[in-house]
Amino acid sequence: MRQFVFEDITSEEVARRTGLYTPLTNSVRELLDATIRTEVDPDTIRAAGELIDRATAMLRSTQSDGPHGVRYTADGTGMPWGNPAIGIRNAIAPPMVVTHEGDHRRVADVVLGAAYEGPPGLVHGGICALLLDHILGEAASAMTGTLTLRYQRATPLGAVHLEADVVATAGRKLTVRGSMSDSDGITVTAEGIFIVPRRVAPTGPDDREGPR
Amino acid sequence: MRQFVFEDITSEEVARRTGLYTPLTNSVRELLDATIRTEVDPDTIRAAGELIDRATAMLRSTQSDGPHGVRYTADGTGMPWGNPAIGIRNAIAPPMVVTHEGDHRRVADVVLGAAYEGPPGLVHGGICALLLDHILGEAASAMTGTLTLRYQRATPLGAVHLEADVVATAGRKLTVRGSMSDSDGITVTAEGIFIVPRRVAPTGPDDREGPR
Repeated sequence: MRQFVFEDITSEEVARRTGLYTPLTNSVRELLDATIRTEVDPDTIRAAGELIDRATAMLRSTQSDGPHGVRYTADGTGMPWGNPAIGIRNAIAPPMVVTHEGDHRRVADVVLGAAYEGPPGLVHGGICALLLDHILGEAASAMTGTLTLRYQRATPLGAVHLEADVVATAGRKLTVRGSMSDSDGITVTAEGIFIVPRRVAPTGPDDREGPR
Repeated sequence: MRQFVFEDITSEEVARRTGLYTPLTNSVRELLDATIRTEVDPDTIRAAGELIDRATAMLRSTQSDGPHGVRYTADGTGMPWGNPAIGIRNAIAPPMVVTHEGDHRRVADVVLGAAYEGPPGLVHGGICALLLDHILGEAASAMTGTLTLRYQRATPLGAVHLEADVVATAGRKLTVRGSMSDSDGITVTAEGIFIVPRRVAPTGPDDREGPR
């Protein structure tokens, strides 16, 4: 596994960057939705494409060589901003905002629109899997070993609720259970075995590894 | 389940629309990657955001009320263009291009970049789940009932290969096995039980339902 990246920045700097990138990514999310749903004529599509390409060129004038990585500050604040489930810089992410309820329980409420559709009007089963894998992994603070998903019924697009609880621990293996639900109850349940990497604790500013 | 939508258009019209939407969505994919990786100054970020918002407003001047849905032509050509795994109008999708090898086998080759990163330099486990759920579901032409994923080792970002085979059928239940691999071999295996909806065959131009 590649190393996690340490950035020697203050919490004020983290807040400043959050305030800078969040509106940009939200703009890209809106564009992504509009790209799926637009019914404008070909000339307008091409004109919109030119504006998008101009924006991309501006953003690419200075950029990191590879992917974003997962960055940490000195106080351990994580910045998994490129993550496709929770990343504030990744327009694939709804983003899911995960709330901690104690050490071993995580919950989230997410609204899933047109970009997450599989069968007509329904959430793609693989999107349910993406969000459940992520929240179970956060509850475990570990990497996925095995994940079993049971689709009880289809999940309509719209507001969904996710939960994950660590239910057992044995050495570096954690068993986690979770679910996705809508206002009528559970739509998908998940159970996973998660594995804590051998070196999980950051050992110094230049030598940090972690689970996700 | 909502009904699938019939569109009375020719294969030439399908090709024309594919040629119109593909470059637009590719532009949004590039923008999404640039949004994650950019290191430009705040003024440039805000200027790029304004261009993006202008493009979105142009595209939204005429748009469908809800999600894209899954549309079919008279000859049965599917247009799942809003799909987050394979949709040519959805920038979340790499897109995965699924090849049929007989009735019950599907394969795909996909390159996964910065937008699909979980742990540093590695594909998010939930993205593996999304793509595997989708390709297994295509092999079955059915909805996911249960899906079990076994992560053998981490999947590095880059080129991956996916396979799915129907290995057993019992009534409306199909058992499908699949895998994701990189150049060194399998990284994730998947096994699923998929359920064929009771009404799967289109029964007429205005009354079509289907699995995905």
